[in-house]
Amino acid sequence: MNFNNVNIPEKLVPDNYLQLGLAAQRSKQRSFKELLEKRKLPENGWSDERIEELVHMLASLDSNNYPHKVGLGEREARTACKLVARRHYNFGHGIGRSGDLLEAQPKAAGSTLLARLTNALILDLIRGIGLPSCAGCFLVPMCTGMTLTLCLQSLRKRRPGAKYVLWSRIDQKSCFKAITAAGLEPVVIPCLIQGESLNTNVDLFREKIKSLGVDSILCLYTTTSCFAPRNSDDIAEVSKLSKQWQIPHLVNNAYGLQAKEIVHQLESANRVGRIDFFVQSSDKNLLVPVGSAIVASFNESVLHDVASTYAGRASGSQSLDVLMTLLSLGRNGFQLLMDQRGENFIYLRENLRKFAELRGEIVLDSRCNSISLAITLATMAGDQMKSITQLGSMLHMRGVSGARVIVPGQNKTIDGHEFIGKFRLPPQQPASSVPDCSGRNRNNPRGDRQILRYFQQVLEAAFSN
Amino acid sequence: MNFNNVNIPEKLVPDNYLQLGLAAQRSKQRSFKELLEKRKLPENGWSDERIEELVHMLASLDSNNYPHKVGLGEREARTACKLVARRHYNFGHGIGRSGDLLEAQPKAAGSTLLARLTNALILDLIRGIGLPSCAGCFLVPMCTGMTLTLCLQSLRKRRPGAKYVLWSRIDQKSCFKAITAAGLEPVVIPCLIQGESLNTNVDLFREKIKSLGVDSILCLYTTTSCFAPRNSDDIAEVSKLSKQWQIPHLVNNAYGLQAKEIVHQLESANRVGRIDFFVQSSDKNLLVPVGSAIVASFNESVLHDVASTYAGRASGSQSLDVLMTLLSLGRNGFQLLMDQRGENFIYLRENLRKFAELRGEIVLDSRCNSISLAITLATMAGDQMKSITQLGSMLHMRGVSGARVIVPGQNKTIDGHEFIGKFRLPPQQPASSVPDCSGRNRNNPRGDRQILRYFQQVLEAAFSN
Amino acid sequence: MNFNNVNIPEKLVPDNYLQLGLAAQRSKQRSFKELLEKRKLPENGWSDERIEELVHMLASLDSNNYPHKVGLGEREARTACKLVARRHYNFGHGIGRSGDLLEAQPKAAGSTLLARLTNALILDLIRGIGLPSCAGCFLVPMCTGMTLTLCLQSLRKRRPGAKYVLWSRIDQKSCFKAITAAGLEPVVIPCLIQGESLNTNVDLFREKIKSLGVDSILCLYTTTSCFAPRNSDDIAEVSKLSKQWQIPHLVNNAYGLQAKEIVHQLESANRVGRIDFFVQSSDKNLLVPVGSAIVASFNESVLHDVASTYAGRASGSQSLDVLMTLLSLGRNGFQLLMDQRGENFIYLRENLRKFAELRGEIVLDSRCNSISLAITLATMAGDQMKSITQLGSMLHMRGVSGARVIVPGQNKTIDGHEFIGKFRLPPQQPASSVPDCSGRNRNNPRGDRQILRYFQQVLEAAFSN
Amino acid sequence: MNFNNVNIPEKLVPDNYLQLGLAAQRSKQRSFKELLEKRKLPENGWSDERIEELVHMLASLDSNNYPHKVGLGEREARTACKLVARRHYNFGHGIGRSGDLLEAQPKAAGSTLLARLTNALILDLIRGIGLPSCAGCFLVPMCTGMTLTLCLQSLRKRRPGAKYVLWSRIDQKSCFKAITAAGLEPVVIPCLIQGESLNTNVDLFREKIKSLGVDSILCLYTTTSCFAPRNSDDIAEVSKLSKQWQIPHLVNNAYGLQAKEIVHQLESANRVGRIDFFVQSSDKNLLVPVGSAIVASFNESVLHDVASTYAGRASGSQSLDVLMTLLSLGRNGFQLLMDQRGENFIYLRENLRKFAELRGEIVLDSRCNSISLAITLATMAGDQMKSITQLGSMLHMRGVSGARVIVPGQNKTIDGHEFIGKFRLPPQQPASSVPDCSGRNRNNPRGDRQILRYFQQVLEAAFSN
Repeated sequence: MNFNNVNIPEKLVPDNYLQLGLAAQRSKQRSFKELLEKRKLPENGWSDERIEELVHMLASLDSNNYPHKVGLGEREARTACKLVARRHYNFGHGIGRSGDLLEAQPKAAGSTLLARLTNALILDLIRGIGLPSCAGCFLVPMCTGMTLTLCLQSLRKRRPGAKYVLWSRIDQKSCFKAITAAGLEPVVIPCLIQGESLNTNVDLFREKIKSLGVDSILCLYTTTSCFAPRNSDDIAEVSKLSKQWQIPHLVNNAYGLQAKEIVHQLESANRVGRIDFFVQSSDKNLLVPVGSAIVASFNESVLHDVASTYAGRASGSQSLDVLMTLLSLGRNGFQLLMDQRGENFIYLRENLRKFAELRGEIVLDSRCNSISLAITLATMAGDQMKSITQLGSMLHMRGVSGARVIVPGQNKTIDGHEFIGKFRLPPQQPASSVPDCSGRNRNNPRGDRQILRYFQQVLEAAFSN
Repeated sequence: MNFNNVNIPEKLVPDNYLQLGLAAQRSKQRSFKELLEKRKLPENGWSDERIEELVHMLASLDSNNYPHKVGLGEREARTACKLVARRHYNFGHGIGRSGDLLEAQPKAAGSTLLARLTNALILDLIRGIGLPSCAGCFLVPMCTGMTLTLCLQSLRKRRPGAKYVLWSRIDQKSCFKAITAAGLEPVVIPCLIQGESLNTNVDLFREKIKSLGVDSILCLYTTTSCFAPRNSDDIAEVSKLSKQWQIPHLVNNAYGLQAKEIVHQLESANRVGRIDFFVQSSDKNLLVPVGSAIVASFNESVLHDVASTYAGRASGSQSLDVLMTLLSLGRNGFQLLMDQRGENFIYLRENLRKFAELRGEIVLDSRCNSISLAITLATMAGDQMKSITQLGSMLHMRGVSGARVIVPGQNKTIDGHEFIGKFRLPPQQPASSVPDCSGRNRNNPRGDRQILRYFQQVLEAAFSN
Repeated sequence: MNFNNVNIPEKLVPDNYLQLGLAAQRSKQRSFKELLEKRKLPENGWSDERIEELVHMLASLDSNNYPHKVGLGEREARTACKLVARRHYNFGHGIGRSGDLLEAQPKAAGSTLLARLTNALILDLIRGIGLPSCAGCFLVPMCTGMTLTLCLQSLRKRRPGAKYVLWSRIDQKSCFKAITAAGLEPVVIPCLIQGESLNTNVDLFREKIKSLGVDSILCLYTTTSCFAPRNSDDIAEVSKLSKQWQIPHLVNNAYGLQAKEIVHQLESANRVGRIDFFVQSSDKNLLVPVGSAIVASFNESVLHDVASTYAGRASGSQSLDVLMTLLSLGRNGFQLLMDQRGENFIYLRENLRKFAELRGEIVLDSRCNSISLAITLATMAGDQMKSITQLGSMLHMRGVSGARVIVPGQNKTIDGHEFIGKFRLPPQQPASSVPDCSGRNRNNPRGDRQILRYFQQVLEAAFSN
Repeated sequence: MNFNNVNIPEKLVPDNYLQLGLAAQRSKQRSFKELLEKRKLPENGWSDERIEELVHMLASLDSNNYPHKVGLGEREARTACKLVARRHYNFGHGIGRSGDLLEAQPKAAGSTLLARLTNALILDLIRGIGLPSCAGCFLVPMCTGMTLTLCLQSLRKRRPGAKYVLWSRIDQKSCFKAITAAGLEPVVIPCLIQGESLNTNVDLFREKIKSLGVDSILCLYTTTSCFAPRNSDDIAEVSKLSKQWQIPHLVNNAYGLQAKEIVHQLESANRVGRIDFFVQSSDKNLLVPVGSAIVASFNESVLHDVASTYAGRASGSQSLDVLMTLLSLGRNGFQLLMDQRGENFIYLRENLRKFAELRGEIVLDSRCNSISLAITLATMAGDQMKSITQLGSMLHMRGVSGARVIVPGQNKTIDGHEFIGKFRLPPQQPASSVPDCSGRNRNNPRGDRQILRYFQQVLEAAFSN
């Protein structure tokens, strides 16, 4: 509904007052036109009201919301519970079309717009923060692990004879299961211990390529964001191998979009070598609820292979979350969060170092990890090794839920593969690792410093016990 | 927050008035206690207010909603956009734990409860509507096709040497792509044309098992709900083969939970044979937005294999939709919808037959399809074959979006497999198929008959043109 | 925001799909244009989505919602709490302009539209249900009593020398206090006991006019809706007096808009005599939360006097409630509620009579009360007079909160005036009165009968104790 | 609903995870208990979620929300439109009881709590910001003007023979109409022009008391907050007269609660003299939508007279707005806004002075007005007097809606009383007045300075034209 061609009588409102009100709508209309026509992320965030208006307008284009819909024989987009319909702004058709996440739905112009506009804005965002070469991307309403699986499945269609995935080890379960879920064979490339940190074993990658044979290898698989003291993988070097041997290269960029260093690393790695896909979690990078990931590529055509591997139509709920969040932040809002994260990281590292020095501990030197920090807990552990696990619950009880306490020497088996906790740094073995140290907190940005100071106090208390 | 141990002073409200108000809460508290302790679907639907109160209470148990949370180093459940947080009732952690959809999350007791309670209520519903042998089930926040893929992937872990999936042909894209997405080899078992309908070729299944060898076959794969004139597969006979040869049997029950006949067929097929999984779409059966499916089994242990094949944590949004919808309907509300659907189906079939008779057309006799009806369009098509495609758009323009007009003789290629449109019923070749004929419409249940009458009018108009 | 002149690229959505979606908006736009241009209540209720869209559009015309508003020096429509802004759809300016409820606000074209459109729709409703002579009306965001006071205050400006208000007694506090609040002198005209009911003492009105003198009388003041066994006042006869003596006539029509008989009575009384204002409660007639009343008149000019007596700007929240409710019901929805109420009244009366007969009680014959019923409680009371007050709490405990149990012979003093409970019907003295017997319940219309049956059961139980 | 005595099975959630979640609720429960038991404004604002939880809990105590309510014969709190019910959190009964705003409602313990708790928090706020002697206060869901009328009406009951209201002139319509609406006789006491500002003519008050006679005077009526160059009335001196002659004193404190100076003035005026009521607008002081006012007194008993003058039950919507806003701000949030306003006022005054000096204008010296500033527009007006009215629209077009441009020499008639625009300050006659200069903007507190700078630019532009 709009005021065009509606002749509101003077009895309802004096025309001069009305005209002021109508004139005020123009900038809003301009921003709307621009958004749809240029498909660019607005510089400044939109108000809640404007976001909801847009979302309602899109939803009204779906056939389940047509005023004259009859519903006979219709299986789709019927919502029994009003509360559910309301929380989805009356969207119900999902996105994609049986077997292609990027296809348009005849019955759902609005959902189609929702999905594609969201993808366009994400692409604009990614390009703007330091990945101008990114050729395309789209949101997959599955977790990062399953999205990595989807990429692997699409690669298998191109390389049906290949079954090995060469994977630079990182101790996170999902990204490993992504390989076995696809029915492929993981070949683990353990990291090299160099100084106090863990780095990509590029030589071992090369050896394995030669020993297994190029044709049997589906892809090389690296990770950018991880817990210290493991460093971000040396994706530039792996990209060169990928290019040299014509083997696809898949990058797990789980929470890397928020870090300038990683973004820059991706852009330059692609320049010197080859990256087929880099996949990132929406919740961690775009601050939405868990449930979706973004596949991006420097080569648009391969993206369609991934999209058409998804067997069905998918939830549109995640696209909605991302669209609303991006419009709410705007380019500047996202940039501000990135900047704050960077500053907070430095602030925390410095203060953690001072603290460590006083206590006879070490903040491990993992220079190529710009997201997470690790501090040893040797003096605290003392003779009673068990006590350090209590630090975890102490932190948790005090509201610090992002830190992880690691007891060395623990082994784990995932899908039949055993992982041995062999990383040792004499004499400080136990370590606490703080991921994503900023606690990017849009609703309380100024409070971040306070939070970091609080963390220090909790650590102080823990060490003093 | 609750009124227990709160001494509200008389100055705020006279005690006798307050006591009346507090007493009125008791039945609500009882229903809440019962829901959580017995995990059964309430007989009668809950009010919107009660549903939202429950959902808010669950969300408050997640660490991102703790009043004292600090957020330091936290990567999870941070929501930048208030509108997004609000529409998810402040849930953010998703469900499952890296690599198992059924596991509990330490940081998210509320999300864990949400997911498991939803699964428990779905199970109670399924058992109650005619599948008492169902041993377990859970919601997968992916479309039906991808959930079928997940089942296939979990079967592959058990039968690593098997690569063939014997699939009774149905002309729906996603369920076929579910096989190729998993990197498996589909073996298409075309239907037999018997009378006016299409039936499962059980003999060909048997032959293929023998010719390909049991060990090379991952599973048998059938479908219950489909467009007429294809009938529901003869899952009892296929179940027997499955049992006899010890080959898993996967049933695509896409929109079958709403039809008593199919529900009964599943229960009895399992009794005489073997069904490993039956998978159904949530949106079509439970009337929620597109985006999730339910895996159910008569054998609880195999379900865990599926759950642990999912590589990561998943969206909790779909569980929320289903929980709210089930509570809103209650057992009786769901049953009522099933009953109405059944009645509407008969009503439509009878009226469509009368109409067809007058017009020299035939409502195809697909006796084993209790959901969809097909009517020939021979007289309408006449010489101008093209004109029948216009019927589709005529119906659509008039708000009837559930009917499908099929032009015979069209071929299609999916993932390299060609499907030939060879079904012919001389002399009436073109057909219109009405799926899920009830238009189960909770918000306008009494209007269904009206809708069916309307459909007849549109058809009249179409034929008269 | 609207799709006009926005060139959505094919990349976002195929044009033919989009066009379908856009075409579907037309009927909505038509209904919007018609509403504003014709200011008539729609025949059929609008969907929640359409109502909210309209409300948001209106709010966007207020200056506090202008995208470019700066806010410097602004005292108005600043809302500190987002939840509050949200629940008011960002309206904040209220209605009217310092000292006139009907004036337009330069800064708030939207609020102005909201208020005036609401008044126009109420007028259209009132005319449509049987008061075609109604010349105008408007919503006052104060209770019925204070609105009656406002009418009296406006009459005083016209008749500064008059101080008496001749009031046909009814045992309801607010309408009496309306007189004293205005600083005027009430002259109580007790009802005549005729048969089993109480009727207007028209002769006493006439006598008082003569004895006090026309110029000293501000107005005659009658009431249409009341608890049985008092009947609706004989407003036709009082209207004749009003016309004859040129004394204003004010009618308290508290909950009379819902009853055809009363509506008809008002229309015909005006034809034979004079009614200056009839005032009704919004909550009881239009089913909105307590807090506003409607002043209506058969003479538009006197309405402006009332509007300009209000000293300030008023809350717009009540206009919003009424607007949304009227759009949600539509003319047909309101009519349906009126019809159901009428039928339920007859149903209850008949069943209550049967019940009374069995029990040796009487449903008092108050023929001119079409809203409320009274039943004696003589046999129940028996010797223990006190026990009948327990019936009230019994009913309340069982969820019947609309019935009132009256113990005879109680006196009351209001603002210095003593009211004596002298109504006696030997031998049945105590009575229970059931106002507005329908329990008009839009959300459960079919349940009304069930409710009435339930009431009977509770009464049965009470009598059996 | 609450978790007490609910034994959630391990199957739904591991007990240790659940216990963490339950423990986290304790601080919330404590804050809830404290709020209700102590009835004090929390120091820090509550989250939206907590506020809504409280509001829902209160609403659940009202009989219309009882799960077992039957509704038979019930006239009250029936809500036809779900959207309306939702936006009122299912409150429907309003506040007060026929004819007393402060009474409890038997059917509505929740609404009663809502109203009284709100009043208690307002009282706590008022005492805390500098009025410790305030004995009581309550919210009236009518505008400030009508609330002043209500106070006058209640005074008339005590002094039935008095008819004059001695009113220190201020050019605002509603507060004057408050007198005539009550049917009383205003006696205008024009201000004295002293220097560049307008001050209370205390001597004339004294003279009028003597000439009219104490018994014929209902009350003295002053105003604290107004547009410069009128100063706040000298309420201390008028209070002394009030005490000396035993004549009630009514203070219109429209938007004075936000200014420390005025708050202090009220407290000390009461100490040296007598103030019966001070009345303030909720929207301007508490940043809620227009529609309510607060009556406060240093003498609790007189408040009940005002409350019991309201003839009926009133809207609870305004109490809800105020309750939610106060909880959202907390004491500290409100204090912060007050402090910012004070600083912004000084900042604006200084910069406006610098600007005026450059331009040959004067910021009028109205020392006893701490809220509003006036600047002459002599040079701008030049010969073309008309052009200065354009400044108003220039400012408005640029989003500055709070400033008022005043053309000298304009007369106005209100309710038969003529007001002559005789204030002249040679040679600068036209003036622009900026009320409430801070633009207290909770949602953009840091932006205030920016806004003030912007205003300067607009003025610059206006002068340069």
